[in-house]
Amino acid sequence: MGKMNWFCEEQTPGLKLCFKYRELLHSEETPYQKIEVYDTEEYGRILLLDGKVMLTEKDGFIYHEMLVHPAMGYLKKREKVVIIGGGDGGCLKEVLKYPVKEVYVVEIDRRVVEVSKKYLPFLASSFDDPRVKVFYEDGYRWLKEREDKFDLVIVDSTDPVGPAEILFSDEFLRVVSEKSFLYVTQSESPFLHVDFLRDFLKRVKKYFPYPLVYLAWIPTYPSGMWSFVMGRKRDTDIPDSPPPGLRYYTPRLFEASRVLPVFVWKRLYSP
Amino acid sequence: MGKMNWFCEEQTPGLKLCFKYRELLHSEETPYQKIEVYDTEEYGRILLLDGKVMLTEKDGFIYHEMLVHPAMGYLKKREKVVIIGGGDGGCLKEVLKYPVKEVYVVEIDRRVVEVSKKYLPFLASSFDDPRVKVFYEDGYRWLKEREDKFDLVIVDSTDPVGPAEILFSDEFLRVVSEKSFLYVTQSESPFLHVDFLRDFLKRVKKYFPYPLVYLAWIPTYPSGMWSFVMGRKRDTDIPDSPPPGLRYYTPRLFEASRVLPVFVWKRLYSP
Repeated sequence: MGKMNWFCEEQTPGLKLCFKYRELLHSEETPYQKIEVYDTEEYGRILLLDGKVMLTEKDGFIYHEMLVHPAMGYLKKREKVVIIGGGDGGCLKEVLKYPVKEVYVVEIDRRVVEVSKKYLPFLASSFDDPRVKVFYEDGYRWLKEREDKFDLVIVDSTDPVGPAEILFSDEFLRVVSEKSFLYVTQSESPFLHVDFLRDFLKRVKKYFPYPLVYLAWIPTYPSGMWSFVMGRKRDTDIPDSPPPGLRYYTPRLFEASRVLPVFVWKRLYSP
Repeated sequence: MGKMNWFCEEQTPGLKLCFKYRELLHSEETPYQKIEVYDTEEYGRILLLDGKVMLTEKDGFIYHEMLVHPAMGYLKKREKVVIIGGGDGGCLKEVLKYPVKEVYVVEIDRRVVEVSKKYLPFLASSFDDPRVKVFYEDGYRWLKEREDKFDLVIVDSTDPVGPAEILFSDEFLRVVSEKSFLYVTQSESPFLHVDFLRDFLKRVKKYFPYPLVYLAWIPTYPSGMWSFVMGRKRDTDIPDSPPPGLRYYTPRLFEASRVLPVFVWKRLYSP
């Protein structure tokens, strides 16, 4: 067994989630953030950025499937998909389950991709697919400067502070809406950050008149209750059947994930 | 502010959830268990039994509403309801929102009720309602020895180990099915304990041929993803409108809460 230690994520000022771990596999400070990879007893390998859990080997599939498949299911044309952030390759892996032509991953921090290739190969091997093009750039600037259009923009980002703050701004949403019909992002915990979600949803609606909010259980994110916002320029049909082999998502589950608990619904939609 | 300390619940051998607290309000060992009440920064007052979080002031409403309202919504006749466990009064408070005639609370540990009355009056004041009769007895034995029948049996218990183990057994389910048409219980985390849930569901089905499994987010329970099992002797209509003022439950949310993620569905229903 060897000796066991614990590390904790301070999820909020009054709450910590602590994991027993076998080994700290990697730790470095990049110009953008601190990257750490732990090998834990309960959740397998865990990637942290600035001390926040980004994904775990055990429950990461929930986040990746729920970020990717609802929007992919709505697409009639699946030629060009953009992922902003997502340097671990988990969302990319889900996108590549469809017959897409090209996927652009725009990750600001090259080291996230390199570290993930080394320690999270079950996700990051998706970067070897010939349909993938990686850009190590600021996502907002990259998107603004592209001349072409895309079928979907997925934002797989950290919390809306520091480098990711821009990805939840008006300027960014305007640029996304000029380049794509459909857009999806994680949008924090509706249990802990419902005011953020309400304000963000209002901003999304200015550029995508038919936004959807939906929820998923993500055990290792603060409160376990997580939200996503999908921006749509027009109303869409029910999503298509997903590829086989998924472990969380079905179109029916997606419909269910849009039925919000009263306390969330009231904060988002009552005057 | 005063000085702040932390206490942790060991949710699984590899995972701890830690709360910053202002004060340990109460701690005692009874013949049945250790009872503690903390005043925390993030979740308000928290009741722990044997070191496990039973409820918090901030998110307890989710558990109480989801345990009570789906089953109450199915009842045509709401005269006599039994709560086994539930010494904190949270479920009782929800049941009393309906025009029931009598509610029997069968709590094995008198001290849970007394401590809750002192430290959780926002829940435990429900014991003052004249429709309530409290018995400090073993729930299984109490139910077995009653001659009369009930409209609903609610089991609001701790984990299925120690004193609560009997409440998930065949003998207990048989007795419940002799006394009531409808039955509901919490049934652990489908993320962490899906095999327990599968085996338990099979047992329930022997006595209640139309069982339902449904889920809720409970941020302070292990993994945040929690399950409930409702036992029904025959198929029922959609539940009635709940009383006003609820913060989580709606009949539509209940329908949604029955759509299970693929990994849960497969473990419960595939051969």
